[in-house]
Amino acid sequence: MSNASYAKPGYTLATYRLYDDKADFRKKAEGIAVGLTVGSWTDLPEVTRQKMEKHLGLVVDVRPHEPEGAAPGERYADITIAYPELNFSRDLPALLVTVFGKLSMDGRIKLLDLQPSAEFLQAFSGPRFGIAGVRETLGVDKRPLLMSIFKSVIGYDLDGLREQFLQQALGGVDLIKDDEILFENPLTPLERRVEVCVDAAREAEKTTGQKLIYFTNLTGPTSKLRENARRAIDAGANGFLFNVLSYGYDAMAELAADSGINVPIAAHPALAGAFYPSPYHGIAAPLLLGKLTRIAGADLSLFPSPYGSVVMPKEENLAVQAALIDPSLPLRAPFPVPSAGIHPGLVPLILRDFGHDVVVNAGGGVHGHPLGAAAGGRAFRQAIDAVLAGRDLAEAAKEHEELRIAVERWGVRNA
Amino acid sequence: MSNASYAKPGYTLATYRLYDDKADFRKKAEGIAVGLTVGSWTDLPEVTRQKMEKHLGLVVDVRPHEPEGAAPGERYADITIAYPELNFSRDLPALLVTVFGKLSMDGRIKLLDLQPSAEFLQAFSGPRFGIAGVRETLGVDKRPLLMSIFKSVIGYDLDGLREQFLQQALGGVDLIKDDEILFENPLTPLERRVEVCVDAAREAEKTTGQKLIYFTNLTGPTSKLRENARRAIDAGANGFLFNVLSYGYDAMAELAADSGINVPIAAHPALAGAFYPSPYHGIAAPLLLGKLTRIAGADLSLFPSPYGSVVMPKEENLAVQAALIDPSLPLRAPFPVPSAGIHPGLVPLILRDFGHDVVVNAGGGVHGHPLGAAAGGRAFRQAIDAVLAGRDLAEAAKEHEELRIAVERWGVRNA
Repeated sequence: MSNASYAKPGYTLATYRLYDDKADFRKKAEGIAVGLTVGSWTDLPEVTRQKMEKHLGLVVDVRPHEPEGAAPGERYADITIAYPELNFSRDLPALLVTVFGKLSMDGRIKLLDLQPSAEFLQAFSGPRFGIAGVRETLGVDKRPLLMSIFKSVIGYDLDGLREQFLQQALGGVDLIKDDEILFENPLTPLERRVEVCVDAAREAEKTTGQKLIYFTNLTGPTSKLRENARRAIDAGANGFLFNVLSYGYDAMAELAADSGINVPIAAHPALAGAFYPSPYHGIAAPLLLGKLTRIAGADLSLFPSPYGSVVMPKEENLAVQAALIDPSLPLRAPFPVPSAGIHPGLVPLILRDFGHDVVVNAGGGVHGHPLGAAAGGRAFRQAIDAVLAGRDLAEAAKEHEELRIAVERWGVRNA
Repeated sequence: MSNASYAKPGYTLATYRLYDDKADFRKKAEGIAVGLTVGSWTDLPEVTRQKMEKHLGLVVDVRPHEPEGAAPGERYADITIAYPELNFSRDLPALLVTVFGKLSMDGRIKLLDLQPSAEFLQAFSGPRFGIAGVRETLGVDKRPLLMSIFKSVIGYDLDGLREQFLQQALGGVDLIKDDEILFENPLTPLERRVEVCVDAAREAEKTTGQKLIYFTNLTGPTSKLRENARRAIDAGANGFLFNVLSYGYDAMAELAADSGINVPIAAHPALAGAFYPSPYHGIAAPLLLGKLTRIAGADLSLFPSPYGSVVMPKEENLAVQAALIDPSLPLRAPFPVPSAGIHPGLVPLILRDFGHDVVVNAGGGVHGHPLGAAAGGRAFRQAIDAVLAGRDLAEAAKEHEELRIAVERWGVRNA
């Protein structure tokens, strides 16, 4: 799925897993390659064929999986089709409708991967910041970043939100994100929310000496997203959270390409569970939350961690990360943000699995600290520093009260 | 799923099917109701509870399905949660992210239905035309409508497209739609395509005496959709096809609400197979292609018929139709368009299953007629007239050459 040589010039490769107990998989693949491009081929006159050949899809690979004595439902093939990019415009709705529009409804078939050509990808600016740009904004060179999430947002007024923000910021987190279910509302309207949170960030900076990005949830009617983003930026916003799957990838790609929206975007995976978990249907997580999210310009991509309550298998998690940072893709790499169920005792595991270009993202693991959210943030920072120094977490906990209490509460899962 | 009394004032009801071999379903439901709204409840002080109560989600119903000796994977419950509409803005991204954002990733859970309140729905204009409006535009009172699809579009120039259009129009079809994979391209650019097809429609009208709507595929960057729509309308467009799931429902809702885009919209189900077929994940077809498509303003909704190669079970098909025409929803009703694998011999079955407020939609069943596309259209019209007159199709075929040949080719499946 990675290290594709981007790719066959003028063609996008699409790889599917197709389950069928009886099908001739090669014939099926040929049917797709013709059916989703020129419509028919064998019955075309030679002169028409010559005209149509450049529009014709090609079967690149068919790998059947047909174990001896396969039980019903076990037989499948991974097939790869090359689609001429001449056939669709340079945008993600056109690409997705072409390769998985009608086909998504044609039996048990899951879209595993897409490899657009380098030329196709030139139409996308991709992440404006990516890992390096976010690090530069924060002035943090190599350390894994720490993000925290508000505990509760709905029903809170500006004072309540500010106080939550301040406590998180005082703990030394690098990034704070809105809850994805915080929409425009009378208690904490967009611009006022940005103002009070940015003000709290400034206040905390006096103590922590640290910069901070606040990812404000960018919401509203599709046609007002840019305008809302600019209003928020005028009010001081320095980052946006975006529920990309509820608006479509193209809406995010347009935000990311807009030079007036010069702040990082964190893509939230809300609704992703409608796409990726079935082995038989949908779009695989490494494509959905990895490659497509990157092409569409996210600077951070959140996805369910393999550690918590809302889980994705570790192998799939690492494939999402691989797609986000794959060096063969000619676009900046977004930060992977494995989320849900994270506490300081998991930091050794997270850094072992994801390396240092990762965002450690916690909600309950910050707010649930017995000494409060600021202590919760400090416990995470202490854990990160300990792991970076090659120290045992339980040992380091002896020297740091916040970490010690966190470890007492949640335990340690060493790498 | 239908006949909801729209609904609990101030609340949207969401119904899920949740598979779990061990869970206490009521406890799980309570966790969702709290977790996706106020975040926590039992540990809140009384004074905070009073403030938060109006934001708290409520468990409305829990219906466990726990048959004696259930095999692993068989145990489930249908649960209904009421979400205060105070918590989210009046748009579909906010609604979907609230009720199925994070939750979609939380194990085996499928979103079955949503019942927003009448007040919430007031924010949506819904279909501008609906069944009645499309009928009025065409001047066709009661008869089921006939739609045809281009045979091949990719690689065709304007002359080739016009000729295909003309042949279809001469057959007496009411509606012709672009292929959903026809995007902006140098051979048949939007405005030129509209001009030649509308011109062909006028030419055919001289023979058929019939009005016709041409659903041009509306594509391009999200922020240019309205502009492209207006350009097409200025060039004579009188309908749009829209790949709604690739742009998000909100993009369509904004088009439908735009008084400058005063033509019907046909929603194409491209990508829908990524959402509805799994019993364990995603969004049920009657909600996805029925109710949400209607709320988002489609005048026609296409979905895979139960008759053809790309199939959806008939029960699910009829549930999609029921959601589209449910009289308790305070919005116009879109035409159901069961698509794929349709030939004239299926008309008795389609009209039995869907009644007369249906669009009979055919591609191969028109173009594959041995006497050509115009004869294919006539065969369909003859079949529709015969069924409306209560006649046996095989009998009627004796009097109509086109129908006779179609029946010879594809057979008859009587109701």
